[in-house]
Amino acid sequence: MSAEILCIGTELLLGNITNGNARWIAEQLAALGIAHHRQLVVGDNRERLIAELQAAPQRCRVLITTGGLGPTPDDLTTEAIAAAFGAPLVEHPQAWAEIQARLAARGRPCAASNRRQAFLPEGAALLPNPTGTAPGMIWSPRPDFTILTFPGVPSEMRAMWEATAAPWLQAAGLAEGVFASRMLRFWGVGESNLAEQMADLLEGSNPTVAPYAGAGEVKLRITARAASTSEAEALLVPVEAEIRARAGKACFGADADTLAAVVLQLLRQRGQTLAVAESCTGGGLGAALAGVPGASDVWLGGVIAYANSVKQGLLGVPAELLHAHGAVSDPVVKAMAEGARRATGADWALAITGVAGPGGGSDAKPVGLVHLAVAGPDGCSSEGVHFGDSRGRAWIQTLAAGESLNRLRLQLS
Amino acid sequence: MSAEILCIGTELLLGNITNGNARWIAEQLAALGIAHHRQLVVGDNRERLIAELQAAPQRCRVLITTGGLGPTPDDLTTEAIAAAFGAPLVEHPQAWAEIQARLAARGRPCAASNRRQAFLPEGAALLPNPTGTAPGMIWSPRPDFTILTFPGVPSEMRAMWEATAAPWLQAAGLAEGVFASRMLRFWGVGESNLAEQMADLLEGSNPTVAPYAGAGEVKLRITARAASTSEAEALLVPVEAEIRARAGKACFGADADTLAAVVLQLLRQRGQTLAVAESCTGGGLGAALAGVPGASDVWLGGVIAYANSVKQGLLGVPAELLHAHGAVSDPVVKAMAEGARRATGADWALAITGVAGPGGGSDAKPVGLVHLAVAGPDGCSSEGVHFGDSRGRAWIQTLAAGESLNRLRLQLS
Repeated sequence: MSAEILCIGTELLLGNITNGNARWIAEQLAALGIAHHRQLVVGDNRERLIAELQAAPQRCRVLITTGGLGPTPDDLTTEAIAAAFGAPLVEHPQAWAEIQARLAARGRPCAASNRRQAFLPEGAALLPNPTGTAPGMIWSPRPDFTILTFPGVPSEMRAMWEATAAPWLQAAGLAEGVFASRMLRFWGVGESNLAEQMADLLEGSNPTVAPYAGAGEVKLRITARAASTSEAEALLVPVEAEIRARAGKACFGADADTLAAVVLQLLRQRGQTLAVAESCTGGGLGAALAGVPGASDVWLGGVIAYANSVKQGLLGVPAELLHAHGAVSDPVVKAMAEGARRATGADWALAITGVAGPGGGSDAKPVGLVHLAVAGPDGCSSEGVHFGDSRGRAWIQTLAAGESLNRLRLQLS
Repeated sequence: MSAEILCIGTELLLGNITNGNARWIAEQLAALGIAHHRQLVVGDNRERLIAELQAAPQRCRVLITTGGLGPTPDDLTTEAIAAAFGAPLVEHPQAWAEIQARLAARGRPCAASNRRQAFLPEGAALLPNPTGTAPGMIWSPRPDFTILTFPGVPSEMRAMWEATAAPWLQAAGLAEGVFASRMLRFWGVGESNLAEQMADLLEGSNPTVAPYAGAGEVKLRITARAASTSEAEALLVPVEAEIRARAGKACFGADADTLAAVVLQLLRQRGQTLAVAESCTGGGLGAALAGVPGASDVWLGGVIAYANSVKQGLLGVPAELLHAHGAVSDPVVKAMAEGARRATGADWALAITGVAGPGGGSDAKPVGLVHLAVAGPDGCSSEGVHFGDSRGRAWIQTLAAGESLNRLRLQLS
């Protein structure tokens, strides 16, 4: 009763892109409790694709494909599936109507190649694509063997999975029992330290606890299996409580929480507002806040003070401070935060200035050094933090924005 | 004469980590000109591993494995390879000497499990690991079938590849020529329209041309094969010229270019500067500019005017304009752009205001409506653009930032 993943695309074989889709689907299958023993990548080659498709029913109950659903001639997935199992391709009226509507909404003409995307093997059900023009299918060409197809664009694949495929897989009874899971999110603790702190829990079998590392953020997924959802969820409770007790404030949230959303919610509860002043992140902190729907009742905006002239002109940072201490310093980052409060009237302000690299570093101020300030109703604090230079500019910018939000979170909670 | 990649590790099947090794090896194989038609991932399971190993010689000349070479009980690769091809495991004295030396250098004791790592199938050659304790092997258990094994730790795998495997693969005469490729990047044209415009080129076999879609951006990769790098690169030239001629200004760059980098370079050539004024993107446009190393000689920063009070206070947008037209309107976005030029002294300014959703939409101003303005030395232009509401907030924000940069690019070029 297992599932396999088949990723289709010559760009994967050429190493142009990393197979993030396989990881994401694997994580979802694990969360659903569906066994998964094999992932395969093949190129946009009709014969090899057909051979792999025909071999799949001997090994698995469900085959999940990604890629090859686009409108171009190298998009072969649907046609190869029909050929592999000897079914004709027929136009799916709902698919065609949705493709036309999607293109019309974007003001784009319907190319003949788009109509090709509305053809599915006879008997296949539509796997709707709520965000793109490439629909997928759910089709059982053999008894006890079902194919689900997804496009390679990650956002479309994920939206289709969540809206249609996950409920279908759950209803199909592929899982051995019912699973419930909870993702706890941490900031300010390394993956290996967190793993050591939770070593005994990582050995557990029901619930299981598995660590995941990201950019600055670390996650622990707790997964429990039981006969019913309520029993599985009940198994999560004591383990989550134990992890939260051990981790303390390092645990900032669960499931879909982000640092930005948690900070905005803490401010909302206080009826307070927030502004930002960004130098080396250049808008990345603001973008994280703007990623949270409904941020506007708390977050006012701020100043991107990339050049020193903007630090002076819009944030009122004194030229003497810049001259005496340099732009990457505690006095300047404090003046930026206080300037942002003053300029916007916000209760709180976060400021960031640093050396994101690859150029611009010195012995005294190396690449990866970032000064962070939090200004609030009761004053302003700041600190210089070293993020290291080994992982590059984007890494330093992402960590600086997260660390800035986390410092405000710790002050507010 | 092709190669396959077999990645071994239950952590890949659980989605705990992304398979970056497969991408890296795929890129190396492409650069060496070695055909590569298949990547497989399996877990730490002896029976399934043996079955896959035994099937490989029918399909490929070289099998490259990653993972499963460590000292723990779930590291099964070497033993499974020996079992699959019926060879005994024998201790390899050089391997054992190197493991002992490596552990001694780290001040670590030699565990019994480390000695296991020195056993290779009889007849296998050592693939030395210059940075870790897990050596690999190069072994031909069948005529015209060779296995190369690597640990899963990316840094060790890469060091072993570069020191030993790449020279071995080159000397083995597996390459069918040398590959060269070029990625052309487009904005303002859909994947299917671009593909139709280039339909005849997409049918070519050397060079091949393949389309890729992203968030707003579309790409075409041209790949050529020849006896030498210079010949392969020469094959790219006429196809690139033809694509650029057909696409016109829709082609904004190649390879590692981004819209932000191209715009900054155009301004740098003119000795002019840029500022931004962002409402619904909340810093995303600035973050794209800050992603380009060395942006600071052109880009000054700007204002994140998320709240109307900031549009008035820092950008000088008149309250009457906001009242009469609303924040999402041509008069307001123009006032934002002009205000950003005035406040920062920049030659050019880009302004964005829109409804990113999911809330806040109305019949007159639906989710996905974004007004964009470009203000420069010769005046200010603006337009309302509909990005649609089907792909969500992040998509609208990404497209708005890209579209804004593209409008300035078209004015400058």
